[in-house]
Amino acid sequence: MPAMRSNSRRRQNRSDSRPAIVQMDWTLGQWIDRPTEPVDEDTLEKVHQNALRILEEIGILFLNSEARDILRGIGCEVDDVTENVRFDRALVLDAIAKAPGRFTITPRNEDRQIILGDGHFLFSCVASTPNVSDLDGGRRVGNRPDYQNLLRLTQYFNCLHFNAGYPVEPVDIHASIRHLDCIYDMLTLTDKVVHAYALGSERIEDAMDMVRIAAGLTEDEFQASPRMFTNINSTSPLKHDWPMLDGAMRAARRGQVVVVSPFTLSGAMAPATVMGAVSQQNAEFLAALVLLQAVREGAPVVYGAFTSNVDMKSGAPAFGTPEYVRAMQISGQLARRYDLPWRGSNANAANYPDGQAVWESVQSINAIASGHCNFVYHAAGWLEGGLCASFEKLIMDCEMLQQITYLNQPLDISDDAFAFEAIREVGPGSHFFGAEHTRRRFKDAFYAPFLSDWRNFETWEESGAMRIEERANTVMKSILAECTPPPIDQATDDELKDFMDRRKAEGGAPTDF
Amino acid sequence: MPAMRSNSRRRQNRSDSRPAIVQMDWTLGQWIDRPTEPVDEDTLEKVHQNALRILEEIGILFLNSEARDILRGIGCEVDDVTENVRFDRALVLDAIAKAPGRFTITPRNEDRQIILGDGHFLFSCVASTPNVSDLDGGRRVGNRPDYQNLLRLTQYFNCLHFNAGYPVEPVDIHASIRHLDCIYDMLTLTDKVVHAYALGSERIEDAMDMVRIAAGLTEDEFQASPRMFTNINSTSPLKHDWPMLDGAMRAARRGQVVVVSPFTLSGAMAPATVMGAVSQQNAEFLAALVLLQAVREGAPVVYGAFTSNVDMKSGAPAFGTPEYVRAMQISGQLARRYDLPWRGSNANAANYPDGQAVWESVQSINAIASGHCNFVYHAAGWLEGGLCASFEKLIMDCEMLQQITYLNQPLDISDDAFAFEAIREVGPGSHFFGAEHTRRRFKDAFYAPFLSDWRNFETWEESGAMRIEERANTVMKSILAECTPPPIDQATDDELKDFMDRRKAEGGAPTDF
Repeated sequence: MPAMRSNSRRRQNRSDSRPAIVQMDWTLGQWIDRPTEPVDEDTLEKVHQNALRILEEIGILFLNSEARDILRGIGCEVDDVTENVRFDRALVLDAIAKAPGRFTITPRNEDRQIILGDGHFLFSCVASTPNVSDLDGGRRVGNRPDYQNLLRLTQYFNCLHFNAGYPVEPVDIHASIRHLDCIYDMLTLTDKVVHAYALGSERIEDAMDMVRIAAGLTEDEFQASPRMFTNINSTSPLKHDWPMLDGAMRAARRGQVVVVSPFTLSGAMAPATVMGAVSQQNAEFLAALVLLQAVREGAPVVYGAFTSNVDMKSGAPAFGTPEYVRAMQISGQLARRYDLPWRGSNANAANYPDGQAVWESVQSINAIASGHCNFVYHAAGWLEGGLCASFEKLIMDCEMLQQITYLNQPLDISDDAFAFEAIREVGPGSHFFGAEHTRRRFKDAFYAPFLSDWRNFETWEESGAMRIEERANTVMKSILAECTPPPIDQATDDELKDFMDRRKAEGGAPTDF
Repeated sequence: MPAMRSNSRRRQNRSDSRPAIVQMDWTLGQWIDRPTEPVDEDTLEKVHQNALRILEEIGILFLNSEARDILRGIGCEVDDVTENVRFDRALVLDAIAKAPGRFTITPRNEDRQIILGDGHFLFSCVASTPNVSDLDGGRRVGNRPDYQNLLRLTQYFNCLHFNAGYPVEPVDIHASIRHLDCIYDMLTLTDKVVHAYALGSERIEDAMDMVRIAAGLTEDEFQASPRMFTNINSTSPLKHDWPMLDGAMRAARRGQVVVVSPFTLSGAMAPATVMGAVSQQNAEFLAALVLLQAVREGAPVVYGAFTSNVDMKSGAPAFGTPEYVRAMQISGQLARRYDLPWRGSNANAANYPDGQAVWESVQSINAIASGHCNFVYHAAGWLEGGLCASFEKLIMDCEMLQQITYLNQPLDISDDAFAFEAIREVGPGSHFFGAEHTRRRFKDAFYAPFLSDWRNFETWEESGAMRIEERANTVMKSILAECTPPPIDQATDDELKDFMDRRKAEGGAPTDF
């Protein structure tokens, strides 16, 4: 296994003290094992054909007349009364062929450019939770100070590559101007790729303008290659709503990335079978793909997969289940079949960062890893099926994400790694601690976790018997005490503020969407 | 995904109340995904060649003159002063060819027969820990009541297939007779496959006699096919000790299974590289394999892999690390190359059943699953790098093992599972809760966990905000309150007791090994 990279220490304004943790360097990892593919080519073809048949014979509701007009224009069968759209399979296959399999998104700091596709994997902080928690303050409704701290952690961790939305919804900011303050915070407390919500025309256009300003781009430059992205969810079964479609079309027109993630919970909004739910997910995705390729040929679109299952007795959503694992792995097969980047999630349904949260999360992560997911939402900090952002879970997840990243680096298979001479030198009845072969590798031989406690029980107990979530709490506070915002030049910051002031004076965005 | 089987309820002597949990039925699972193979054929061949070269040029210490005589007899180069044995590669290849790739072990209850090989996976309770813990009593030294309760849980859980040793060492029984009481408890509180320690000639012979008696077999019948197994560890680097070799030879002579598990901790007892440590593991294993095939041609031997790494700063052993995952997956490749069943472990180095314990365990389990391990030691209950058996961790692990088992059942890919008509019937804007397709599948659509809590935060909090280890504690006590020992006929029980009485009167086993 190769050395961890130089372990850049982020001393910054605490140069007199040790850094909170030693973390891995920023890297765009690539999956190195063969993907796990639960279904064979014939069965995958049946999912594809089933989706095409749903699109041809049943159709999808598009609650947006502009979208329907565009789809009618390319030959879809549109009913403006029922708002149903049916798709000839040739239109679908044409859209699949037009969508790019690989593209970049470049934030204001070009060193944080990300590549979607090519077997890369990218992780984000949790997004879009209404609540936030830590062990000190307990669970509370989302607010701006917590929102900002979650952004600071997103910026701090090199294993987190992009913002997937607001880590928590800061409801203490009025909804009409929240998007302005939130995007400003995201653009100034992080220099990583930004996401904007498709929640009405003003919000997404404002966000795109601010991303353009922050990167110092003209509109032509902004549209030349992706600089940010949005995500839309279908209202499953079989429906795309107005604001999501509006935002997606606006993003596509300005050359930005759209992730299309049907929310197909098996047993509730989708059939109670993996094959049925994945078929429906596929149909809902493909319908949006056709629209976006009609809006702008070659528009960068990500295959979003969010299929999981519910508890059949209570209807409660579940994640990291066997069904979730299989749905994700098959989604990966579909995305590869269509040559599109795909988006998954690190999800769980636990209410506390305990063993259940970790079990369900790790199964989600392993589904993503074994399925070769490219764009991983909610990779750090998600609890309660997405209803809460947990500071401790975020730290715990980053430890796990680092290990997954490390695991996907090539093994050292040099002759020296086979260590024949070292084995001869040490011989029986001795040990390798002092061997020259070991001393040479002392620093970088193995992955060094920042959160695991490998001391013996007695030492662990004497030092407070802290569970991992308690250690995570301590680490989180140390990091927040030392981290500083990424640089931004004064003129750019002023321009962002001017833009915000103007838009706030204009009233921001309507709140009746 | 297929239905869970009939969920046999173990009401037994609590027929008036609900069972503690609804669990999966007993099944011998088989891995269904392609294995993950970190190294290509050429690199695997280098590991094999490196091991052969270690055996030819360096040799292995055999601290047992009988073993050395046998090895000398087949042509090994033996030095009785240094006790070193060197192996011509032809002898090693011959032993590999003679060892069977698939065999069964049949305990006294033939319905609990297990198959080693053929891609099957089998799980055991934790074994050989000096300490035991639960949330009520904390951590304590091993004792017979806890030992017995751990056996009861091993018997109870259908996802646990065999005993891998004493779940905890009951030090309140004198060492000279401990093996008699322990094997008696194991044979009467469980009817699953039994393991005996290779700790001196008397212990293993007594255990074999008791297994034979419990199954009502003649010695010829006992020797005709495997009825139990032992495990030996090398004293890495490059040494096999007297009692382990003695026990292994005795088991092989009487036709019983030997697991050979070098304890090659990378950076301590093995080189600080995965390829070096696995090469050494392989050499130590192959040396014992040659001996056992010389003792009895065709002796059933399991490829044991226990390579992990240490924390380079402290020397503390670590498990579930990226290095552990790779070492296990490569071990699987080696075992398949040699066509031998292989043994791995569900290990972690945590001191409490928290998120760290689960993270490291799940990575161990996923290494085992992705590597297609056949015989999984310590699958339930291990903590502290094997120094403690945790009752709560055992329950938590069984939940995870059930899910892994379920994940490895074939997906439902029938036409009906694709659910086209159900999707048409439900249509947009509705839900699948009431659909006929869902109602037909209501009971068995998804895996139903016995330990996960998927309720919303408010309900969870109002009902006590229990972490998963606290729920596991409750489940554990409910199970122990309801479970009863498997039947054994009186004559057999009397014969076991007579045997024990006689052996105790003879003084049991020496304690100066």
